[in-house]
Amino acid sequence: MIPITDSRIESYLMHMIPEDDPHLAAMEEKAEESGLPIVGRLVGRFLYLLTRLRQPALVVELGSGFGYSAYWFARALSVRGKVVLTDYSEKNVAYARQVFTESGFSGRGEFRVGDALQIGREYNDIDLLFIDIDKYQYPEAIRVMWPRLAPNALVIADNALWHGKVAEEGTQDRETEGIRQFNEFMFSHDDFFSSIIPLRDGVLLAYKFN
Amino acid sequence: MIPITDSRIESYLMHMIPEDDPHLAAMEEKAEESGLPIVGRLVGRFLYLLTRLRQPALVVELGSGFGYSAYWFARALSVRGKVVLTDYSEKNVAYARQVFTESGFSGRGEFRVGDALQIGREYNDIDLLFIDIDKYQYPEAIRVMWPRLAPNALVIADNALWHGKVAEEGTQDRETEGIRQFNEFMFSHDDFFSSIIPLRDGVLLAYKFN
Repeated sequence: MIPITDSRIESYLMHMIPEDDPHLAAMEEKAEESGLPIVGRLVGRFLYLLTRLRQPALVVELGSGFGYSAYWFARALSVRGKVVLTDYSEKNVAYARQVFTESGFSGRGEFRVGDALQIGREYNDIDLLFIDIDKYQYPEAIRVMWPRLAPNALVIADNALWHGKVAEEGTQDRETEGIRQFNEFMFSHDDFFSSIIPLRDGVLLAYKFN
Repeated sequence: MIPITDSRIESYLMHMIPEDDPHLAAMEEKAEESGLPIVGRLVGRFLYLLTRLRQPALVVELGSGFGYSAYWFARALSVRGKVVLTDYSEKNVAYARQVFTESGFSGRGEFRVGDALQIGREYNDIDLLFIDIDKYQYPEAIRVMWPRLAPNALVIADNALWHGKVAEEGTQDRETEGIRQFNEFMFSHDDFFSSIIPLRDGVLLAYKFN
């Protein structure tokens, strides 16, 4: 008997995954070298699957880094779908744009440099909102973005378990508190039906009823 | 730092869940008392969310037990949706029917007693297939049911990590081998895009492309 997220389980899951495209491999290598965080292959595949199920016309990402998760969204979108990438770093956004161009997905991306919460306010009727900015900003992010969601929207937030710190009673730093408040908001709000998936660092999913 | 599926994490997740309806509570109590397995609250909520995203007209369950997972599907279905329950036990199916009736969902259920794989063959254009029969039967289940899936169907299989035994090299009993073969089939088949979620005992999700 092995606990489910034992490293042997993770390695079983990773070995199951068929070879994939070179852009993913290049981005994973870049993450490894640079230390910039990405959601990784297992969460990436989960994002792809959720996107296929929801079939969104508009995906907005708050915090895109250099475009790893956005690339998974782009692959899953139909031709009429679009993903808006946001990041503070011009260099990150330029890299993402290049990956989209090289993979033939440039028509599916909108590339924005600046403050994710400022840029997010410009959009409405969002079918899928992905949140991956600084963790203390999560409560503000959902307050700002909630009125901008389409009916039956899907909210996906990365790091919803924050290294398990959310469950540690003594831990009260600003990031952990941000995630805790965000999770509580999502589970107590009547408009949302939420679930936290213990994949990697925790992925919160919320379906919006109206 | 706590490993993500540490018992403290599970308890954090369980405490987050708002009070729910009395039928669920009654079924959970029945499972506790009888020892009959159910997917439990966390997987149940995940099923609900996936069903809302996919909006299936037809859900077929292979192995319904006394109807716990079927009840989650029924709650998530639109009025035009239907879930087909299958179980060997007349008593289990009668119990499920009663829960559906009491909760006002009887129009959303079709209650079948007998061999799940025999009954499953009677259906076509299945939008969501849920597999939870004897584990050695999983490879046969997908071979039989695969041609009966609708385009963009979602396959959900419970126990896809089978207490972690799938990742134990020495373990080769019939049930473990069944799950292993099933997982390999789902990940290597071009028509499916699969992901295993390490929630409870592992939940395999597969999106069918065509």
